[in-house]
Amino acid sequence: MVYRDFVREKHEFDMVTVQLPDGSKQAHDSGVTALKVAEGISPRLASAAIAAEVDGKLKDITAALDDGEHNVRIITSRDAEALEVLRHTAAHVMAEAVLRLYGNRTQYTIGPALINDFQYGFYYDFDLPESVSISTDDLPKIEAEMAKIVGEKIPLERIELSPDDAKAEMKKIGQSYKIEMIGDLEKENSGLSFVSVYRQGNFIDMCRGPHLPDTGKLGKAFKLMSVAGAYWRGDENNKMLTRIYGVAFFDKKELAAHLERIEEAKKRDHRVLGRQLGLFLLDEKVGPGLPLWLPNGSIIRMELEGWLRGELLKRGYQPVHTPHIGKLDLWRTSGHYPYYEHGLFPTMNLAEGDGEDGYLLKPMNCPFHIRIYKSSQKSYRDLPVRLSEFGQVYRFEQSGELSGLTRVRGFTQDDAHIFCTPDQLEAEIESCVDLTKLCLATLGLNDYRVRIGLRDPDSTKYVGKSENWDRAENNIRHVVQKLGMNFTEEPGEAAFYGPKIDFVVKDCIGREWQLGTIQVDYNLPERFELEYTAADNTPHRPVMIHRAPLGSPERFIGILIEHFAGAFPLWLAPVQAAVLPVSEKFLAYAQGIHQALHEAGLRVELDDSPDKIGAKIRRATMQKIPYMAVVGGREEESNTVAVRHRTEGDLGAMSLEAFRDGLLAEKASRGSTPLQVNA
Amino acid sequence: MVYRDFVREKHEFDMVTVQLPDGSKQAHDSGVTALKVAEGISPRLASAAIAAEVDGKLKDITAALDDGEHNVRIITSRDAEALEVLRHTAAHVMAEAVLRLYGNRTQYTIGPALINDFQYGFYYDFDLPESVSISTDDLPKIEAEMAKIVGEKIPLERIELSPDDAKAEMKKIGQSYKIEMIGDLEKENSGLSFVSVYRQGNFIDMCRGPHLPDTGKLGKAFKLMSVAGAYWRGDENNKMLTRIYGVAFFDKKELAAHLERIEEAKKRDHRVLGRQLGLFLLDEKVGPGLPLWLPNGSIIRMELEGWLRGELLKRGYQPVHTPHIGKLDLWRTSGHYPYYEHGLFPTMNLAEGDGEDGYLLKPMNCPFHIRIYKSSQKSYRDLPVRLSEFGQVYRFEQSGELSGLTRVRGFTQDDAHIFCTPDQLEAEIESCVDLTKLCLATLGLNDYRVRIGLRDPDSTKYVGKSENWDRAENNIRHVVQKLGMNFTEEPGEAAFYGPKIDFVVKDCIGREWQLGTIQVDYNLPERFELEYTAADNTPHRPVMIHRAPLGSPERFIGILIEHFAGAFPLWLAPVQAAVLPVSEKFLAYAQGIHQALHEAGLRVELDDSPDKIGAKIRRATMQKIPYMAVVGGREEESNTVAVRHRTEGDLGAMSLEAFRDGLLAEKASRGSTPLQVNA
Repeated sequence: MVYRDFVREKHEFDMVTVQLPDGSKQAHDSGVTALKVAEGISPRLASAAIAAEVDGKLKDITAALDDGEHNVRIITSRDAEALEVLRHTAAHVMAEAVLRLYGNRTQYTIGPALINDFQYGFYYDFDLPESVSISTDDLPKIEAEMAKIVGEKIPLERIELSPDDAKAEMKKIGQSYKIEMIGDLEKENSGLSFVSVYRQGNFIDMCRGPHLPDTGKLGKAFKLMSVAGAYWRGDENNKMLTRIYGVAFFDKKELAAHLERIEEAKKRDHRVLGRQLGLFLLDEKVGPGLPLWLPNGSIIRMELEGWLRGELLKRGYQPVHTPHIGKLDLWRTSGHYPYYEHGLFPTMNLAEGDGEDGYLLKPMNCPFHIRIYKSSQKSYRDLPVRLSEFGQVYRFEQSGELSGLTRVRGFTQDDAHIFCTPDQLEAEIESCVDLTKLCLATLGLNDYRVRIGLRDPDSTKYVGKSENWDRAENNIRHVVQKLGMNFTEEPGEAAFYGPKIDFVVKDCIGREWQLGTIQVDYNLPERFELEYTAADNTPHRPVMIHRAPLGSPERFIGILIEHFAGAFPLWLAPVQAAVLPVSEKFLAYAQGIHQALHEAGLRVELDDSPDKIGAKIRRATMQKIPYMAVVGGREEESNTVAVRHRTEGDLGAMSLEAFRDGLLAEKASRGSTPLQVNA
Repeated sequence: MVYRDFVREKHEFDMVTVQLPDGSKQAHDSGVTALKVAEGISPRLASAAIAAEVDGKLKDITAALDDGEHNVRIITSRDAEALEVLRHTAAHVMAEAVLRLYGNRTQYTIGPALINDFQYGFYYDFDLPESVSISTDDLPKIEAEMAKIVGEKIPLERIELSPDDAKAEMKKIGQSYKIEMIGDLEKENSGLSFVSVYRQGNFIDMCRGPHLPDTGKLGKAFKLMSVAGAYWRGDENNKMLTRIYGVAFFDKKELAAHLERIEEAKKRDHRVLGRQLGLFLLDEKVGPGLPLWLPNGSIIRMELEGWLRGELLKRGYQPVHTPHIGKLDLWRTSGHYPYYEHGLFPTMNLAEGDGEDGYLLKPMNCPFHIRIYKSSQKSYRDLPVRLSEFGQVYRFEQSGELSGLTRVRGFTQDDAHIFCTPDQLEAEIESCVDLTKLCLATLGLNDYRVRIGLRDPDSTKYVGKSENWDRAENNIRHVVQKLGMNFTEEPGEAAFYGPKIDFVVKDCIGREWQLGTIQVDYNLPERFELEYTAADNTPHRPVMIHRAPLGSPERFIGILIEHFAGAFPLWLAPVQAAVLPVSEKFLAYAQGIHQALHEAGLRVELDDSPDKIGAKIRRATMQKIPYMAVVGGREEESNTVAVRHRTEGDLGAMSLEAFRDGLLAEKASRGSTPLQVNA
């Protein structure tokens, strides 16, 4: 085989000039590596070096720098880029361990590093020999083998081969998937000159790199997490492979914190809590991704919607209700059909002769609100028109992507469309930002950042004129800057009709969720030919805002379930108080308490089972009921209740009136500070 | 031609015995007519006689009774059956008038009497000669010709002809539609022995009869109402005919009252008021029969739903929310598909390989509530389970049948399903009746009757065992009898899964509407295999009630709009009060009043236009706003408002607090008694 290193071309200067991040410059001999540069700075830096950023690209720390001038930054474990390198090497080390344990007939296919996954840090997909199967029980053995490889401190060596040589090499070691992948690379890049391969001892793998300089640098802070089946190339017509997931960090503390976060997330899993607390149901007979709200979940949803409706009325929004289907032509005008057809439920086609177009299940409420705007003449005096609806929409997500309430096919939007003059636009955006912040603050979601989604200038998926996009993007930037909000700009993340502000919220265990959205749209008003009569008596075009402060009640409540671990604040709790008689003797007194609380408008349950009081308290606590009113002889005599809080425990005795008024006050405040003792 | 009269068969006795409604019997000679019988009773009865009921069937008063024994009742204008006879003859008289005026080349096709139509009493469809067209302007001329025919007192003579003779007769007078109709009759009834024909002078028409004895009896209380196009046999591929609608009564007072009712209905037309008051929108671009609720209508809907939700909570109902689509198989199990396919929107068929069944837009909420019931184990202690939802359903009604909010394709049901033990069933039905009565009483719809819909024993459209049907029908009868309610039983009017109680409500102008429904169902629990564990620890099958006290908010509100003529009681009114400053000088004071009322939770509007106070009052009155607070110098000085009510007019001055508290009290009472003056 012909190593590319051996055929290096002639350069003008056989010298390397390195510029470091602090601006200083160094001259080096030809063939110098970043590791050498680091050694020149300090032995400590050299020992911490993971990789190097050379002219903006990540490279192996041991790679020779081309002749010429380069910006070089040494990457250590403190740099954000380092984790991906670590995890990539971890995948190779795991693959070598599997080969050592299960023999050379094991084929290894694809093994990426994961950076933004909440649970996993890397995986590798294996096609195991027929006699072999790997389960969770085998993971400690593989981990032990990995630890051995780490101990061996095997160097990772980058080699660049011609595609034919790379195929020959892979054929030699019997890795047919890799040969297929090299063929694909050739198809994608005509004139592909080389394929990079990493060798660590006897193990060789195709890989773009970079990698840690040797397996010893992987250290001990890794763990294999689970085994799953995965189709080759994700296609169910292909062979099922064995995927092993793992995670890796630079130190054991980080690993421990990660594992703890995962444990915490499992306890808070809204799919599990949803079943346990009777909040919602996913039913294969109804269809995947189509949640049915059970009574307890319905109450949370109705409370949340009811509160938001009140806020909308205060802010001059007008409620509307629109159908869940509309003629196909409406979606041709909007641009959803046929462009977004892959994400839509199939059309309902009428029999010929029905004289009507087919119908589409609505993926968005906008065209309906637009038709309402258009149904009567508007003057500048009527603007802004703010039409709001909790509108349920349907999108055909792939079934593999569905999850609980957070990835569904049928969901509500706390939607509104604001039609205003261009002059009114920025004030309206600001008021939308304000409402979104109020929603998040009310639910105690105070850790969030703002992302501005811009068009991708190279894509053709957007509708409308370039100047409309410029205007809208500037409007958004202007408002966010004026409000002094932290924001990032992300090209390619706009809606197809306009740019947007997204609120990305961190929950209490550190996961990020995209929730509220505010989108500016000069384009649909054009496509639907919307107008208003301006002060000069001529027709003008309004601009639209699409916005949803919660995003979707389904998704929002799914996240709230995890955020609160099912223990909702009083105003949202499906059952706000449980009345627990210590024995049947006090049932009549308990019924009176129950009745009085029910009549005060509280959601209250009476546990009249023959169980012991301890069991009753446990059950109510499991159901995350905020308050328990325990009643026995002492309470009946003194006309009081003994109050327990689900987390604060015993709050002492208080009169029925004090208990009732305390609950009503806490409910009205929408807070989550528990009732004060008031003996 | 051979008249059937001339070939009468030989009977055993050539004698007629007549039994009258009072039980008395009379012997008559063979060939006696009911008219003769009436003459024998009194000349007045004979002169008032319209037709006769012979052995339960309506006959011409002049027809000879067959030999033998007969029950005979003389029908006069006082009998309910008389109106149909009158109107049927009116249709013939109108047809003769049209032929006299527009020539014998006019073809007359079908001309039925209408009894339950709110507007019309009869019509006739004509195929006019090419040179002729008839418009509303021509109706007085036709009415005058009809009056002439009435004056001529032409006898109507029944003749029974063999089908061939009837065709020959029709051919002679050039009536080709009639020949086609005789052909159809022959196809429908093999061995058809005769066709009855009525002759009045030169006019002859095929008709089942009976008719008035002569045209004079039609009198003067008739009126032609309108002209419309109508396809022959209602098929748009056929020729368009000219339909003339008329109405006829026995006396002029009844006619006048009818015309007044129609005028009143026009003023109350919910389609017109819906547009005028900004309540709802029907938009061809969205699709026929798919109403969009505008802000004012949405408020009415939300108030009504909010009130009903509160009543449901009090009664132990639990809210749920379910999707608008479900897998097709769910509807195969329920029996909706394919049996009711013609009334459904087309299915959404997935591409092959999606590994899922197609989806159906839901025509009913039941299968979803059933799946919720089935999602957890139930014991007899958990029953009754009452799941409620304002669920929007979709049914593909023919576009020609759609009308405003009362006949639509997309509508909400104020639905609930109660799952209970057979022992609990009657108490649950009773409580459903109670809730329905509360709904009607709250909206002032106090004139209603109850109809029990039973299965049609000859039909196969019903699911389930006969003993289930017997049980359910008996349960319903038992409750209605126990409650002492007026009811009629109507075979063939059951739902496909069980019998039902329907509330048929009369609005303030006398039209009947079917609203609330309560349906008992032993069958879907079987089809979906529902169970609960009984006290003996064995599985039992629950019984279901499907019920909707309003029926559908769309339809209900459509009717309420007409019932209230758009002037909704305060609690439902989209705008509850308008603040009207008499001039710009008092705008600041008016704003303060507006703000105070808004903060008290009232829906209030401020008219800050430069218009005169008279115009402002007119506009608020037109918008049917219950209260106006007029404010000028006197009011500002004395810190009061001058209150006007939309119908009661000036109520005098009162303090802001008195006005506000009065409105809040009226709103809370859900009544429609206007505020008392409180100077």
